[in-house]
Amino acid sequence: MGNTFGHLFRITTFGESHGGGVGVVIDGCPPRLEISAEEIQLELDRRRPGQSKITTPRKEADTCEILSGVFEGKTLGTPISILVRNKDTRPQDYDEMAQKYRPSHADATYDAKYGIRNWQGGGRSSARETIGRVAAGAIAKKILRQVANVEVIGYVKRIKDLEGVVDPDTVTLDQVESNIVRCPDGELAERMIELIEQTGRQGDSIGGVVECVARNVPKGLGEPVFDKLEADIAKAVMSLPASKGFEIGSGFAGTLLTGFEHNDEYYTDENGEIRTVTNRSGGIQGGIANGENIILRVAFKPTATIRKEQKTVTREGEETLLAAKGRHDPCVLPRAVPMVEAMVALVLCDHLLRHHGQCEIL
Amino acid sequence: MGNTFGHLFRITTFGESHGGGVGVVIDGCPPRLEISAEEIQLELDRRRPGQSKITTPRKEADTCEILSGVFEGKTLGTPISILVRNKDTRPQDYDEMAQKYRPSHADATYDAKYGIRNWQGGGRSSARETIGRVAAGAIAKKILRQVANVEVIGYVKRIKDLEGVVDPDTVTLDQVESNIVRCPDGELAERMIELIEQTGRQGDSIGGVVECVARNVPKGLGEPVFDKLEADIAKAVMSLPASKGFEIGSGFAGTLLTGFEHNDEYYTDENGEIRTVTNRSGGIQGGIANGENIILRVAFKPTATIRKEQKTVTREGEETLLAAKGRHDPCVLPRAVPMVEAMVALVLCDHLLRHHGQCEIL
Amino acid sequence: MGNTFGHLFRITTFGESHGGGVGVVIDGCPPRLEISAEEIQLELDRRRPGQSKITTPRKEADTCEILSGVFEGKTLGTPISILVRNKDTRPQDYDEMAQKYRPSHADATYDAKYGIRNWQGGGRSSARETIGRVAAGAIAKKILRQVANVEVIGYVKRIKDLEGVVDPDTVTLDQVESNIVRCPDGELAERMIELIEQTGRQGDSIGGVVECVARNVPKGLGEPVFDKLEADIAKAVMSLPASKGFEIGSGFAGTLLTGFEHNDEYYTDENGEIRTVTNRSGGIQGGIANGENIILRVAFKPTATIRKEQKTVTREGEETLLAAKGRHDPCVLPRAVPMVEAMVALVLCDHLLRHHGQCEIL
Amino acid sequence: MGNTFGHLFRITTFGESHGGGVGVVIDGCPPRLEISAEEIQLELDRRRPGQSKITTPRKEADTCEILSGVFEGKTLGTPISILVRNKDTRPQDYDEMAQKYRPSHADATYDAKYGIRNWQGGGRSSARETIGRVAAGAIAKKILRQVANVEVIGYVKRIKDLEGVVDPDTVTLDQVESNIVRCPDGELAERMIELIEQTGRQGDSIGGVVECVARNVPKGLGEPVFDKLEADIAKAVMSLPASKGFEIGSGFAGTLLTGFEHNDEYYTDENGEIRTVTNRSGGIQGGIANGENIILRVAFKPTATIRKEQKTVTREGEETLLAAKGRHDPCVLPRAVPMVEAMVALVLCDHLLRHHGQCEIL
Repeated sequence: MGNTFGHLFRITTFGESHGGGVGVVIDGCPPRLEISAEEIQLELDRRRPGQSKITTPRKEADTCEILSGVFEGKTLGTPISILVRNKDTRPQDYDEMAQKYRPSHADATYDAKYGIRNWQGGGRSSARETIGRVAAGAIAKKILRQVANVEVIGYVKRIKDLEGVVDPDTVTLDQVESNIVRCPDGELAERMIELIEQTGRQGDSIGGVVECVARNVPKGLGEPVFDKLEADIAKAVMSLPASKGFEIGSGFAGTLLTGFEHNDEYYTDENGEIRTVTNRSGGIQGGIANGENIILRVAFKPTATIRKEQKTVTREGEETLLAAKGRHDPCVLPRAVPMVEAMVALVLCDHLLRHHGQCEIL
Repeated sequence: MGNTFGHLFRITTFGESHGGGVGVVIDGCPPRLEISAEEIQLELDRRRPGQSKITTPRKEADTCEILSGVFEGKTLGTPISILVRNKDTRPQDYDEMAQKYRPSHADATYDAKYGIRNWQGGGRSSARETIGRVAAGAIAKKILRQVANVEVIGYVKRIKDLEGVVDPDTVTLDQVESNIVRCPDGELAERMIELIEQTGRQGDSIGGVVECVARNVPKGLGEPVFDKLEADIAKAVMSLPASKGFEIGSGFAGTLLTGFEHNDEYYTDENGEIRTVTNRSGGIQGGIANGENIILRVAFKPTATIRKEQKTVTREGEETLLAAKGRHDPCVLPRAVPMVEAMVALVLCDHLLRHHGQCEIL
Repeated sequence: MGNTFGHLFRITTFGESHGGGVGVVIDGCPPRLEISAEEIQLELDRRRPGQSKITTPRKEADTCEILSGVFEGKTLGTPISILVRNKDTRPQDYDEMAQKYRPSHADATYDAKYGIRNWQGGGRSSARETIGRVAAGAIAKKILRQVANVEVIGYVKRIKDLEGVVDPDTVTLDQVESNIVRCPDGELAERMIELIEQTGRQGDSIGGVVECVARNVPKGLGEPVFDKLEADIAKAVMSLPASKGFEIGSGFAGTLLTGFEHNDEYYTDENGEIRTVTNRSGGIQGGIANGENIILRVAFKPTATIRKEQKTVTREGEETLLAAKGRHDPCVLPRAVPMVEAMVALVLCDHLLRHHGQCEIL
Repeated sequence: MGNTFGHLFRITTFGESHGGGVGVVIDGCPPRLEISAEEIQLELDRRRPGQSKITTPRKEADTCEILSGVFEGKTLGTPISILVRNKDTRPQDYDEMAQKYRPSHADATYDAKYGIRNWQGGGRSSARETIGRVAAGAIAKKILRQVANVEVIGYVKRIKDLEGVVDPDTVTLDQVESNIVRCPDGELAERMIELIEQTGRQGDSIGGVVECVARNVPKGLGEPVFDKLEADIAKAVMSLPASKGFEIGSGFAGTLLTGFEHNDEYYTDENGEIRTVTNRSGGIQGGIANGENIILRVAFKPTATIRKEQKTVTREGEETLLAAKGRHDPCVLPRAVPMVEAMVALVLCDHLLRHHGQCEIL
């Protein structure tokens, strides 16, 4: 259960880190959208390991194949299935894992839930699962761009205690991609990279915060009650591996203001558009987009897999020590950026179709 | 759309703040559960306005009627529908609202989405909508308690910058209910109440943080990918009015630690149970409960409706001023506590049934 | 579970025959649709018992109240909840039913499933449950009419072995309503009424076939695979009490033709529209409407509740005799007509919104 | 939309007849079920073309690969994805189809819906889509067998006007598989085969009726209202290509009886089990299984694709003639048998898990 996401634009991911492969089936995609494997690959390449010196040296080409739903370069309206084969497996790296539970990993909970587990790597809890999300997100982004010129841009806002200065209203994808840590604050990016490298050399890991902005989101997207736009986005990003917190707009800091200080006053702009002076709401009021930029942040914990030795237990409960042998990211943040973008785009695209279906028919 | 929540234990809420009433239909409730309107009313009374000097003086008795699904004091397994009639409406308080958009409220976005709005109060975006959630949550809590002795306890952790000291492992409902602000840190509670009253007198409002703990959650609840337990809880609480942020376990603060510092080492306790020494995971690893206490926090912004005058625009975009006339909470936190508990209980109950359906049948 | 129907235009019904009432929550209704309780009542009156000498003499006014979702005569886009209170209960008629299982009724299976049952009448399996469907169907019909001039007309095609001659392409609602059995073949209608009355006097019951036509259904509604239009309609009508069979277009009789005889050849009509010469497909090809009239039939068994004495067992398995005492329809067909129409309209309306959401956005 | 089926045991199929392949993702499968590609292949071989002289001579090996969800021969509880590559395509057979609409096929309606179509064969409307269903059905069957010894057996009941005599209470899979038309009435089977061959030689096609029985279905499976067991089964089988009608139990013929004749009287059998003397209900009362055999019938129209020349139009609406060139089944019935079984098994397995989740937890 729980491998499907979305209501009208709906994706189902499948696959473990070891086995035949990972992928996604996208149901409900509008027909006649031009899309190619190359476009999808671009996003997958932003996600893939081994892309830079601060990500895991595992070489996973992660080449995607579109199995269905696209014909002569256009979507058919039928399910788009995308498959990425698994490669470069080094099962010997994982031998210990058949026995020992990695701290703060899902090994023990999968065993508790299912009574069985593919112990050759993370199995279904591996970050490889996000390949399907990012592939689907590439399509969602294209629909959003085409229908409403929506842009979804994520970036590293903070690595441990190094916090960048970035203006969400103007940041560009080029700026994000200008360095390997994906922090558009260039100077700080250098220090972040240094910190990640140094931490990796120590066999340890660090976390941080990804911020994401969605611009040009049409007013009216979102739903009033359970499927509030911020609720669906919260679920979307909190379902990413290693995420521990979520904020929309003013977030936790907003709780330190009074209502008078916090409220976003309205005005009418030069085009007669109703706007807000400030944007502490983060672009959403009552669960529905108000036309301002949607701004959100996601906290990612330090990578659980580290080379430093830690106490743990075996499947049978015997106490033991474990030092990870595989090749792992000392910091997931740079690769988390396209994942966050994908999840936000999936939510917005689903709500775009839902809104169109219900509210633009009479 | 978006008025249904849950997969197996599934609720649908309905109703606006003004009109016939608000309520909920609960589908999928296990049969033969003893339940009475009185038990449900207990939770509704914790949520209702006018319960103390620091909540809105609106007198809403919020008496619930069970319309279906219960027979001779037991659930039938068929839909339980619960209705609370609307009363004590003072439409004259809302006259201005037909024309003026309240800052940081949903008036403008509802108009943008639907092109129509019940302007006699908050309509569907009113906190009255949460009556249905709290009523359903009372039933979810009872199932959880009966099946697995699960306890779900929320409390005010922080009001503005006043942060209480509370031990989630031992806090009791009695402690929470021992004062009107629902902060079990008694001394601080007094200061919180004072701050809320003072803010209310100034026609302003304040926010804060609710913390919630779920104890005795069976290992194995949750799903691996999109419906991770923390993702579903995030959606659940971020769908509450005025919520701006969510954390599980270490949350945002956890991003300041290294992996070695952050990881929860395993050990085997005196009963042979595999446990974690620390609980930075917040009781969930890989989306699945690990048996430790589930601990989460929700940020609530300061109430948007304030008596202080603010700039805004009319429906037609004309700039104007607005000072709310209705009777409003200067701080939603005390009443948000039962709402958070309800949402957490709804998620856990749904996952309890889902887990049982899939994983305990072979 | 299973009390919700539809994907975008989604209804949830609730209520037992005895207890507070029955009703429906409609989620996803387009906003700004003019609708009144009176319009809904018109359809409910076609469904209600006691409307003529050939239906049960139970007097159920079945007056509906709109609790939410409608404001100043227009839909808000938020959930529309409609409640019909239960009245005129004669629990003494049902005393025996607490103990004895009525043959071909749901008493025994409800007990088997839930281990508990509201034995004061049919409980949830009562035909009163269809009040919510018919109320929601009235709204679905209005949307269909307004958006695409779709007409959904059902009628009694056959009572036992009396089969009427009706042209689905031209039949009108007035013709259907011109007699109490709802068979537009006037002459035969008289004989049908006579047969029903005679059967009722004997304490027995009869069944038959309802045919339903949907005209002006836009080409393209429907989905290719599981949610084929005929599959969703089949589920919709087979979920009505007492239904035992379903046919679309040529149905079972079509299996006696060869492919050459059965295929619907295409031609281009005077407006340049691609049409089929015959309509054995029943307006649907590959699950998707082709613009021809959608024609379907539903078999309804003879009413299970009869005054004639039959063998049965008690809840404890003791063999006994039962002769129903309540007031029951000797034939459900006349009242089934608005139910079939409602279910067909609900499916079409849902697919109208779904198609609009996915296929008319790029 | 509409490519997902089931609630707890949930499948999503993908793929067109031409392109990378077809397949299925199964979510919600209980963990630790022993399953192999070979077991699944057995069912696929019953479905595949070219298996006998009365099916299309297209050689499609339809070899399945399990991509995920199975580890060391057991299900993991995570999504099981199964892929069958497309082969043996002869696009030249389909050249005409790019232009001409095949009568009673989905070519025209897909164009109407999506404005685009993979014209190299049936695309998504091809019977190849059912590969995913049959593969998933093999797993559903195994779960049903293992949990409750449920058997699901389909067979050809009628070919055109040749109706076999089969006892659903005793028929075996061996009897069904004893001849290539899958009719357990051996003598009649010979005549059926002859009729199919003769019809095929004439370039024409025929249809008929598949009957299916499910034995040992636990009492209590099913839901009361929309998801009645017969409603879900109706949808399941009416979503199969070429199906035109559905009956449960007495079906259409039952409408010719009176209630007294039709009702299934109860008795208590030698094991103290409450049973029915007759089974006109077809094993389901009020949407819920009563423990008797579930018996249903599905009408399949004659194959639409025939070599005989017919009138049709081109995509542009120009009138023309078409005689199919590809290799096609003169009768789909023998291959429809495993499809019907699969769909019935999928419904039962989903309801098994749902019932367990809701009703067997307290």
